[in-house]
Amino acid sequence: MSKLNGAFAADMPEKKLKSLEKILSYADTNISGSLDRLFQLLRIPSVSCDPHYADQCQEAARWLSDELENIGFASSVRETIGHPVVVAHHKNSGGPHVLFYGHYDVQPIDPLDEWEADPFDPQLRVQSSGETHIVARGASDDKGQLLTFIEACRAWKAVTGSLPISVSMFFEGEEESGSPSMDAFLDQAGAELSADIMLLCDTYLWNDAVPAVTVMFRGLLEEEIEITCANRDLHSGAYGNAARNPIQVLAEVIASLRGPKGEVAIAGFYDDVKEPGRELKAELDKLHFDTETFLNNVGLSQSAGDQTYSVLEQVWTRPSCEINGIAGGYYGDGLKTIVPSKATAKISFRLVDGQDPDLIRAKFHEHIRTRMPSDCAVKFTELGGSKASVIPCDSKYLRRARAALKDEWGCDSVLIGSGGSIPIVSVMQSKLSINSLPIGFARSDNRHHSPNEKYDLSSFKKGIRSWIRILAELSADEGNYGYLKPHPQV
Amino acid sequence: MSKLNGAFAADMPEKKLKSLEKILSYADTNISGSLDRLFQLLRIPSVSCDPHYADQCQEAARWLSDELENIGFASSVRETIGHPVVVAHHKNSGGPHVLFYGHYDVQPIDPLDEWEADPFDPQLRVQSSGETHIVARGASDDKGQLLTFIEACRAWKAVTGSLPISVSMFFEGEEESGSPSMDAFLDQAGAELSADIMLLCDTYLWNDAVPAVTVMFRGLLEEEIEITCANRDLHSGAYGNAARNPIQVLAEVIASLRGPKGEVAIAGFYDDVKEPGRELKAELDKLHFDTETFLNNVGLSQSAGDQTYSVLEQVWTRPSCEINGIAGGYYGDGLKTIVPSKATAKISFRLVDGQDPDLIRAKFHEHIRTRMPSDCAVKFTELGGSKASVIPCDSKYLRRARAALKDEWGCDSVLIGSGGSIPIVSVMQSKLSINSLPIGFARSDNRHHSPNEKYDLSSFKKGIRSWIRILAELSADEGNYGYLKPHPQV
Repeated sequence: MSKLNGAFAADMPEKKLKSLEKILSYADTNISGSLDRLFQLLRIPSVSCDPHYADQCQEAARWLSDELENIGFASSVRETIGHPVVVAHHKNSGGPHVLFYGHYDVQPIDPLDEWEADPFDPQLRVQSSGETHIVARGASDDKGQLLTFIEACRAWKAVTGSLPISVSMFFEGEEESGSPSMDAFLDQAGAELSADIMLLCDTYLWNDAVPAVTVMFRGLLEEEIEITCANRDLHSGAYGNAARNPIQVLAEVIASLRGPKGEVAIAGFYDDVKEPGRELKAELDKLHFDTETFLNNVGLSQSAGDQTYSVLEQVWTRPSCEINGIAGGYYGDGLKTIVPSKATAKISFRLVDGQDPDLIRAKFHEHIRTRMPSDCAVKFTELGGSKASVIPCDSKYLRRARAALKDEWGCDSVLIGSGGSIPIVSVMQSKLSINSLPIGFARSDNRHHSPNEKYDLSSFKKGIRSWIRILAELSADEGNYGYLKPHPQV
Repeated sequence: MSKLNGAFAADMPEKKLKSLEKILSYADTNISGSLDRLFQLLRIPSVSCDPHYADQCQEAARWLSDELENIGFASSVRETIGHPVVVAHHKNSGGPHVLFYGHYDVQPIDPLDEWEADPFDPQLRVQSSGETHIVARGASDDKGQLLTFIEACRAWKAVTGSLPISVSMFFEGEEESGSPSMDAFLDQAGAELSADIMLLCDTYLWNDAVPAVTVMFRGLLEEEIEITCANRDLHSGAYGNAARNPIQVLAEVIASLRGPKGEVAIAGFYDDVKEPGRELKAELDKLHFDTETFLNNVGLSQSAGDQTYSVLEQVWTRPSCEINGIAGGYYGDGLKTIVPSKATAKISFRLVDGQDPDLIRAKFHEHIRTRMPSDCAVKFTELGGSKASVIPCDSKYLRRARAALKDEWGCDSVLIGSGGSIPIVSVMQSKLSINSLPIGFARSDNRHHSPNEKYDLSSFKKGIRSWIRILAELSADEGNYGYLKPHPQV
């Protein structure tokens, strides 16, 4: 739309404003149908990192594609070298073209014995506070969140018969495994995903009452190392002392990964780290992050990281190295008196702006290799890698989305960072020059990646409403207020 | 028998000598029956450290007791606070009273995928060398070995209708788990096991052609430690750097357990260590232990232990600390991006003469506790402990047993040590003042505690024959040569 159509647009606001109220009201009235669909999706155990669940990943992709067809999208499941992706389009002649991204895969469920119910049998649990939790693996990360956008589109379609702007959707099934198939898929089919901006919902509220746009993510580098000493498990009586013990060796190299201040002790690890810009630093300072509550909430009282930096800096703007898992020898009931042959660890790095995953990987390998004593072989398995990403803070889409959030939440949104990684954000930036608007409604206590993951029913409801408003705001691009009153601040 | 009976004994030797030949010949001729029985016992998966196999431990005890009744022992299965024991008696009016000890329990079978066949489906495998292996979990440790003694008794009974001396047998089902119920059982029923000497077979030949009596064993102390940091697994993006990682902490304390020379680095660990006597040291020097082959056989080239000591000393006369297993976080396929809540390790010490298990345990706990950073809780699980034991080298029973071994093997036996632990040896010494004669026929390549454990058919055959001769030699006590020619060296 251009200013030539101003007269036409001026005639419409009242009618269209009523439509927006109707769409929001439709979403509220039909929330039980939205929940039914969420439960259907949660019942599919689409764990991407474990090959045993490959069929269930296919099933989740199929389910999503069918639902998108039901609301008028041209949708299809596309095979990749790994789990399939879903691509869907719904064209509109006006406004910007948005691409919504989400992932249908979920984290593994162990330790299973810490779940209060079957992780794939979703439950609505009313809390003593009066709030209601949706409890299941993936309830928040990312099935509940991605459905907020689909249900927003459904409400638009139900009330107006259309969408206010062109919308494409793109769902992958490997986000929790480092998106190993993404590069190849985008090289082949990326042009079809071209859009003005990518929306995604795999992020958090700042707090229960304040929405946030996440403008930086750490990158992720995943490695598995296996150390082998003797050619078989040995009797610890016959060989104890004399035979090199791979668990001892692995423990020594893991111990060497962190220095006395809590810093990562790999040579050259921090060489290319870019500190955040002054403007962003000012935004972060305004947050008055409550370190004590952040740690106390998970049973901790002190940060283990590099004490030169604040805890918020440690998790958003500083790279990390974490041991995600370790196994070696006998770990069943009781004890087996062996000097084991092998020990293995899963190690991942969170990277920040400036760090190159390939270079960090090489430095890590060098660090380990130079520490191998005699009779030890080390095998590296590269499990994935992605750069950090930083989103420009000055785009018109960001301004309009924040306006919509203010209408829904009644307060200003904030700009935040994320210690986590959403590889697609950096990949879409580098491959297709598409910037992102990551707006999510998860709360910090949603237990992502942990037992008893939950999504608040209020997040689900207000998430749907927020997207309904954001779609309207984005349609008001270039002076055509569409479904909105003119916003003084936009 | 006393010298008063010398005239009677002098009448008998020729007839009795013929009987000994007949007994040996009976054992050879009936070896397939002996093997059938061994296979029956090997098919019972009596893994003692895993509570899932409790019924199978019962079954193995029952099987042994029934077999002993079949050859005329008064036998019964006795309950303990853990797995049951078998106690059996066969009296004879003359000679010393021997107690034979063995264990019917076996080590766990994992890693299962490294077995070439079902560990509990025993196989006879003819090797290209012409030798035959009996392959199964427990084939050598200890089911095959203990049956050599039972089958020797069977042959004696079949040919002479009796045994030449009083024999009791005692089989436990917790040797592979540190014998946690032994103390309580012996306190209650120990008097019944009173004997002049204990025989046992849970040891090795010196090499394929040279038998050995094992005169020292290391003790064993078993511990499990669990370190807990956050109250749940955390997202490594949200908390990576800030949250204390229990795998990192565990790795650091494990790394601290060994010093730069390979020595155990717990304060005071070596304080009470007694070096072996000069006489025993001279015996060990005579062995000309082949360190290179010992290490090369298992794919190693250099010792990892305290380089101040020879490898033979490292494994026989020096205490050790080995990490037997470790587990924490996610160790399935792929990777899970968490900072885990917990990590655990199984750690065991081999102790030598002079070291007190309780004191070492206390020093170990202190070592770990003082290294716990903030927000870490450590839990210790005590899995068992036994002192080292040293057997006197100058007893008449030892001399007679060595004479019998020389008759069977055609060469002198040697006195050796064992890095392993047979807790019953020290327990019988301290509780009932019974010394032991540990004479086993296992070879060093029998893969005890490892996949594809085997026992050589020749060990099984010559083991039975050796015990037949040892029983005869022991009956010739005090100048009554019984079933033997006078031995000049005895």
